Amino acid sequence: MKRITVGLLGCGTVGSGLVQLVARERERIRARFGIDLEIGRILVRDLSKERPGVDRALLTNSATEVIDDDCDVVVEAIGGVHAAGSFVRRAIARGRDVVTANKALLAAAGRELFDAAARSGVTIGFEASVCGGVPVVGALRRGLAGDSIERITGILNGTSNYVLCRMEEGLELADAVRCAQERGFAEADPSLDVGGHDAAQKLRILAELAFDAPVRRTTVVGIEGVKTEPDTVTRQVAEARRVPGGVELVVEPRRLPRAHPLARVVDEQNAVVIRGRAVGDVWLGGRGAGSLPTAAAILSDILECGGRPALRAVV
Amino acid sequence: MKRITVGLLGCGTVGSGLVQLVARERERIRARFGIDLEIGRILVRDLSKERPGVDRALLTNSATEVIDDDCDVVVEAIGGVHAAGSFVRRAIARGRDVVTANKALLAAAGRELFDAAARSGVTIGFEASVCGGVPVVGALRRGLAGDSIERITGILNGTSNYVLCRMEEGLELADAVRCAQERGFAEADPSLDVGGHDAAQKLRILAELAFDAPVRRTTVVGIEGVKTEPDTVTRQVAEARRVPGGVELVVEPRRLPRAHPLARVVDEQNAVVIRGRAVGDVWLGGRGAGSLPTAAAILSDILECGGRPALRAVV
Repeated sequence: MKRITVGLLGCGTVGSGLVQLVARERERIRARFGIDLEIGRILVRDLSKERPGVDRALLTNSATEVIDDDCDVVVEAIGGVHAAGSFVRRAIARGRDVVTANKALLAAAGRELFDAAARSGVTIGFEASVCGGVPVVGALRRGLAGDSIERITGILNGTSNYVLCRMEEGLELADAVRCAQERGFAEADPSLDVGGHDAAQKLRILAELAFDAPVRRTTVVGIEGVKTEPDTVTRQVAEARRVPGGVELVVEPRRLPRAHPLARVVDEQNAVVIRGRAVGDVWLGGRGAGSLPTAAAILSDILECGGRPALRAVV
Repeated sequence: MKRITVGLLGCGTVGSGLVQLVARERERIRARFGIDLEIGRILVRDLSKERPGVDRALLTNSATEVIDDDCDVVVEAIGGVHAAGSFVRRAIARGRDVVTANKALLAAAGRELFDAAARSGVTIGFEASVCGGVPVVGALRRGLAGDSIERITGILNGTSNYVLCRMEEGLELADAVRCAQERGFAEADPSLDVGGHDAAQKLRILAELAFDAPVRRTTVVGIEGVKTEPDTVTRQVAEARRVPGGVELVVEPRRLPRAHPLARVVDEQNAVVIRGRAVGDVWLGGRGAGSLPTAAAILSDILECGGRPALRAVV
């Protein structure tokens, strides 16, 4: 039985979801993949806070301790760019595989981190950074690797979609944002969601995976001024497509007929339509945010870090 | 630059699609993955037949020659169970990775073949065996590996779906089947499509990936007696779910309200809804059949056989 020890940086929404999910799935993962999964040390800010289901003995407020202690994979779940980036660099330098849901970090420093990981012979898993539990990163990296991608169109920010759905029902923007925050899936700073910047970061990650070409132009328009209208639906649409010499990224509110496939994506759901030259349009959708969906994507990445999961019995 | 030579068994719809796709994507794959991909020998029945775009010098009617000649991956694209099975066994014994779209072979002999592959240290790629170009096998093997799957519901047979869509427009079953055959995506024996057996084979593959539990009961009902009715849509629905002691598989025509997500899957498209305990419902859909979509899935599997594709530049 192979053993994987996870060093966990952060025990907020995503980190605590991962602790909960590992406890729930551990036996299945042992039986299915022959992997004995264990959470090692956990970085938290406040050691005294009550955390149901989390073993206090694992907590520390030293990131160095989490990274340097015996572990195989470091999961970065603190968010933000600066501290997270320096922790990820340290983990890579120590030869740890890294798993992160941090699209802001990837947008700011992705190329440098992936280069460092390649030099150290470790991997960076980032399935959870786009569309939460929907395996769109894996689809682009592997399942669709044989095809030329022509266009990616999607709803990549669950909060904006939730907000637009509430506005269709008559709420004002500010009240709709408050609803999303109460439900726990708005970003700390909702202007990143509403302004389109969160979607643009995710779109950029997908575009780099899909096109391997420089981004020539990025247009980001927020949903702030949107008016709902009868018989149409407004969605924050993110689209990446080839243009001469590279790729163009657009995030903007678009008015769609009710029968449009993206118009049917409701509440905090995400969806992506990937147009491949050979395969045509491939659809993926589901919950793009939330503690457990994001944790499930992180856990899948952890299992891949531990070597491609050896399926005990397939078919 | 890593070199992968493909031994190709069969040059029909799928095999010739692969030859065409490799020619088209070769440069992108060199640049993106650092893999130099080459088609080695190609098994055909009729050496004299015109095959535009296929180099005659590669053709042979000896499967042994294809498998035993220098190659890294054997792609099985002849279909059927007996000859295909013995070729795949030979390839595994020779230490070749195998890629196949042959769900009938996997349904008949999958467990034995995967055991043999594990003993030989080779892999069997089968993304193309379910839902053509839609990467649902990869989603279950990797992207959703961290979660417990509770249910799989889908439209897994493009021909039946196409036939049901034509029947909605007023065609009789036999005429609708003829249309599908003219479009080139009905199986040689359409009774496998219409009768639900093709969908049941695919469902079984997905269920084995998802549940790792024995199939306790399989119910397969064909679409032959279906009557179309106003305001509803009939779809051949395939569903796998946990029951005490294992898994139950059902393929049957179901009447769905027009607003139902599966009712919107039209023509030869496929779709799968995977319900995970943590992630909720994840949707995948797209073209489930056809020469190029199937070839694209095979090509993605070939790239994975050649080692997990090393992305040159990610983010």
